Amino acid sequence: MTVRFGLLGAGRIGKVHAAAIASNPKARLVAVADALEPAARALAQAWGAEVRSLDDIVSAGDIDAVVICTPTDTHADLIERLARAGKAIFCEKPIDLDVARVEACLKVVDKTGAALMVGFNRRFDPHFAAVRQAIDDGRIGAVEMVTITSRDPGAPPPDYVKRSGGIFRDMTIHDFDMARFLLGEEPVSVSAHAAVLVDPEIGRMGDFDSASVILETASGRQCVISNSRRATYGYDQRIEVHGAKGMVAAENQRPVSIEIADGSGYTRPPLHDFFMTRYTEAYANEIAAFVEAVEAGRKPKPDGRDGLRALALAEAALRSVREGKRVDVASVA
Amino acid sequence: MTVRFGLLGAGRIGKVHAAAIASNPKARLVAVADALEPAARALAQAWGAEVRSLDDIVSAGDIDAVVICTPTDTHADLIERLARAGKAIFCEKPIDLDVARVEACLKVVDKTGAALMVGFNRRFDPHFAAVRQAIDDGRIGAVEMVTITSRDPGAPPPDYVKRSGGIFRDMTIHDFDMARFLLGEEPVSVSAHAAVLVDPEIGRMGDFDSASVILETASGRQCVISNSRRATYGYDQRIEVHGAKGMVAAENQRPVSIEIADGSGYTRPPLHDFFMTRYTEAYANEIAAFVEAVEAGRKPKPDGRDGLRALALAEAALRSVREGKRVDVASVA
Amino acid sequence: MTVRFGLLGAGRIGKVHAAAIASNPKARLVAVADALEPAARALAQAWGAEVRSLDDIVSAGDIDAVVICTPTDTHADLIERLARAGKAIFCEKPIDLDVARVEACLKVVDKTGAALMVGFNRRFDPHFAAVRQAIDDGRIGAVEMVTITSRDPGAPPPDYVKRSGGIFRDMTIHDFDMARFLLGEEPVSVSAHAAVLVDPEIGRMGDFDSASVILETASGRQCVISNSRRATYGYDQRIEVHGAKGMVAAENQRPVSIEIADGSGYTRPPLHDFFMTRYTEAYANEIAAFVEAVEAGRKPKPDGRDGLRALALAEAALRSVREGKRVDVASVA
Amino acid sequence: MTVRFGLLGAGRIGKVHAAAIASNPKARLVAVADALEPAARALAQAWGAEVRSLDDIVSAGDIDAVVICTPTDTHADLIERLARAGKAIFCEKPIDLDVARVEACLKVVDKTGAALMVGFNRRFDPHFAAVRQAIDDGRIGAVEMVTITSRDPGAPPPDYVKRSGGIFRDMTIHDFDMARFLLGEEPVSVSAHAAVLVDPEIGRMGDFDSASVILETASGRQCVISNSRRATYGYDQRIEVHGAKGMVAAENQRPVSIEIADGSGYTRPPLHDFFMTRYTEAYANEIAAFVEAVEAGRKPKPDGRDGLRALALAEAALRSVREGKRVDVASVA
Repeated sequence: MTVRFGLLGAGRIGKVHAAAIASNPKARLVAVADALEPAARALAQAWGAEVRSLDDIVSAGDIDAVVICTPTDTHADLIERLARAGKAIFCEKPIDLDVARVEACLKVVDKTGAALMVGFNRRFDPHFAAVRQAIDDGRIGAVEMVTITSRDPGAPPPDYVKRSGGIFRDMTIHDFDMARFLLGEEPVSVSAHAAVLVDPEIGRMGDFDSASVILETASGRQCVISNSRRATYGYDQRIEVHGAKGMVAAENQRPVSIEIADGSGYTRPPLHDFFMTRYTEAYANEIAAFVEAVEAGRKPKPDGRDGLRALALAEAALRSVREGKRVDVASVA
Repeated sequence: MTVRFGLLGAGRIGKVHAAAIASNPKARLVAVADALEPAARALAQAWGAEVRSLDDIVSAGDIDAVVICTPTDTHADLIERLARAGKAIFCEKPIDLDVARVEACLKVVDKTGAALMVGFNRRFDPHFAAVRQAIDDGRIGAVEMVTITSRDPGAPPPDYVKRSGGIFRDMTIHDFDMARFLLGEEPVSVSAHAAVLVDPEIGRMGDFDSASVILETASGRQCVISNSRRATYGYDQRIEVHGAKGMVAAENQRPVSIEIADGSGYTRPPLHDFFMTRYTEAYANEIAAFVEAVEAGRKPKPDGRDGLRALALAEAALRSVREGKRVDVASVA
Repeated sequence: MTVRFGLLGAGRIGKVHAAAIASNPKARLVAVADALEPAARALAQAWGAEVRSLDDIVSAGDIDAVVICTPTDTHADLIERLARAGKAIFCEKPIDLDVARVEACLKVVDKTGAALMVGFNRRFDPHFAAVRQAIDDGRIGAVEMVTITSRDPGAPPPDYVKRSGGIFRDMTIHDFDMARFLLGEEPVSVSAHAAVLVDPEIGRMGDFDSASVILETASGRQCVISNSRRATYGYDQRIEVHGAKGMVAAENQRPVSIEIADGSGYTRPPLHDFFMTRYTEAYANEIAAFVEAVEAGRKPKPDGRDGLRALALAEAALRSVREGKRVDVASVA
Repeated sequence: MTVRFGLLGAGRIGKVHAAAIASNPKARLVAVADALEPAARALAQAWGAEVRSLDDIVSAGDIDAVVICTPTDTHADLIERLARAGKAIFCEKPIDLDVARVEACLKVVDKTGAALMVGFNRRFDPHFAAVRQAIDDGRIGAVEMVTITSRDPGAPPPDYVKRSGGIFRDMTIHDFDMARFLLGEEPVSVSAHAAVLVDPEIGRMGDFDSASVILETASGRQCVISNSRRATYGYDQRIEVHGAKGMVAAENQRPVSIEIADGSGYTRPPLHDFFMTRYTEAYANEIAAFVEAVEAGRKPKPDGRDGLRALALAEAALRSVREGKRVDVASVA
């Protein structure tokens, strides 16, 4: 069986998913839609697909699954329409910036029985997946302390920040999902500090660019997250899990791993410049997992509930910063 | 000039300092005192020193400087006596478990003009010192985020825990000093989570064995600290500082740095087993810095004020855990 | 323009090249031939190509370029036929095991003006290519000493050894090409030692499984090569170049780069298990370079002359082992 | 028991040994002799020893052991005198530049039954010693291929080169000893290439500054050595042993192991600047091993025979370069 795909949104992340679909022997990209027709056309031609309207893709008989890469404020509506149309759905995170809207959307998904996967690509990175595997294999015993370092190479443009929902919902949300993926228990409380150290413009929009978060589970397991919107040395993505019997860590990746030595020392090149190259394998594996689930008629993971839990942690972190106290996640969602 | 030393307390850390003094060409160990006479005798003989009573050392005319390695609850009194006796003083941390007692003690030190150095040995580790040097040299620009990972190889015995003042005053206090050493600004607020994940006995004594702390300065600089009382892989001591222009990190140290590869992978030996071997160079450099200050008639650093600030952060962290909120350091001391 | 490919030989390396062609947007796999029809069929179907006879591919009007992955003893004849048929030719190394036969073949190639590329894939590995780039950029000054460590994960089966031409022509030949690629001068003399340490069966066939080689250029630049047919820790592929101003090295690659720490130390997973995964990117880049040359009407590199020079070094190394002396390369070819 | 030392030669290496003796609780430096009286005086005063004449040290009743750090051409005579005087002898390498002279000297040592240790300090480096221990523990199975990279930070002054006996007897000799220490079998044949790439002045003296050597044992085990008299990145000292079951390697050491990351990449500081700091621990361990042997009345290792074997390999390497062929070690000594 070949899973036939429609793609909504031909922007940066849409291109990434289109390439992943095209390189997957069990998937085929059938149609692309984008509000900007030339963008849709370019992407469709690159992979031998058609340009169609969004409505046509939703109702198409020759499309099994749809990837949603449109702006965030359209996600929940599209999920509901596609769920009702019987499509398998892959939606970029977040489902919505508002917890209540996500909850309403997931009710529709549940009622229709639609297959919904949310784009937490990092779970599919081979290195991070191997960290989780090491935990599952009992290599480090019971998980106790998770450390996530996650820094973007550079601050996003003001326009992006404005629509992003803020650092916790836009950037840390990946780390919240990773924390849940690795802690083995749901975080129940959150303490967060955040500041504007990189770009005052971000502060003027009411957002932050540097944040530190502690998550704690009911049994006392802890996760610390360190975020910055700027790292001169590349896209900094590290994970470490300390447990009762040992520790497992995934170090940073770089496109070229040579070392040059001279009088100034031993130098390795900078890290990947951003997620498109850092997570190439992750995106391919993510689509492959979605395709496998669709083929097998299984519900894919991570799902809408995972999207909701990560968003709730973002909401709790934001409240913690604003109110200067530890926030119970249960009070949020 | 040779600085002539008396040593109070011939236990584990007393032995470390005695060796550092003996290997320093500008220092000489003159006398050792300990409540357990055989311990004092053994240490004195090893380095060609005498056994004397504590009182004799305080009043000795042939002793310029005294190292205090006795139990914590004797530190403040001894500092005051030695300050009044005109000795240069090197005191193991902490000065006292009580902030008010420390403040009172430092008043005596100030009034007498005594030279007092507090044993935050990690500032003298060549690797951590190089991290600070890189910051001072402008290599990473303005400091933004400090990450300190600090894990003991194994939980201390119940008896030690009882007298320790708790994880924040006993263990994290080194990390608090390191945070102050690297942040370039005083932390003004603290959020902490702590739990008992390693040894329930520690919990029964009202203490914690696993802790996560966020410190924040007035300008928004942040430091996250991750502590555990147990690491199967050795004494885990890492520091990383992220700044506007770059990042500097000091990795873990091991006594033997070979790598063995076979079908199970590439394996390097565990880390140092604890502070005595991990910080051998740091202890030697620390005594050398103290000797140089005494010789030059300068006040040594870190001093009593540094001891007080670190203790205040420990107090604030403990309150944050207990009260479930961010604590202003100014409310503590 | 799209370069239309025929593929001769659907074995292990044929599959690698087929995948590289299929994933290249500027290339298309048109036809596959193999003496074993089912092998040809499986590979053709996987990538939407046809099965044709070898003769049909040679004479096809809809094929621009042919990849030769057939047994070594067919290479030279096929190159000559394809050259005369006006095809661009990509041939797996070696062109032939016999220096004189290679020289005769290259005369035909020269006369027909055919584009011939020889499959020294390692030049296209991003890490090794970056080593060469660092040299070209003047980062290490004049090259002085090249060190190549090259170890297969396991000894080949007897049947393979029999047809291989021996370790120098089959395995070290890649290192000889890499030495030429990095030294910046032609090696003029060779000293080699070789022994049977891994598998006595290899010795019974008159071959070796462990070899050490020194190459020297006219100006005294040196390259040492260390080969073994077995490495329990994976496919060991390292390069280091020491120059007047510095050093550049490409370390080993592994599929998953996590680290697990416990009481036995810090362990990273084994290396790639062999060339198919280790050099995935290299094979894709190699085909891309061939396609670009064909598109542009340029002669590709490495070419037949490179294949001949590497074979001559293999011949010289073998003579050095047999005769117990340093061998002038000029005496071989 | 305390071993009482005399030291002959207060130059660079004499100072290193004096410090090692002084820091050893079981050893005491009694007297220093040097042709340059001020040098002897400075060193003696630094460690509370006396200045004596060489003759007085040879005949002294209060000296158990003598360390020879005088110029190479005095070593053999001094060993013979000290052996006859009943002293335990620690002699810097080499015993002599001439194989026959060494053989004659060792006959005297054997006849007198004197304890003679030769200064191959690298055997006592904790990292290299751990490599050997891993082999002895069976971690890598039977040794097959040893790789030694050994590069000085900078070329020695012409005066030093003149008296050095050439690169093989002066520099590679350490690597020859290390090869013997690790191969587990005596090398029986040697192939070497050498050139002048660093400093033409070295060439004018008939010496080389860049060399590559292959050693082979009777069973076919191989060792490759790569030497250069200059490395801009510090004192390059690496060892790797590949065996039937695995591989063990000792990487380079640096005084400060931090890493700084910025837009130009991740940079670690250069290596140690030379042997005095790189091998500090090795020198201390070496003297400790000598002291232990003297105390226990055991013959120390490495001994005169080890010194002779390493010299024979140097001689064989030189012949190999000059004659352009593989040299049987048995033909040398």
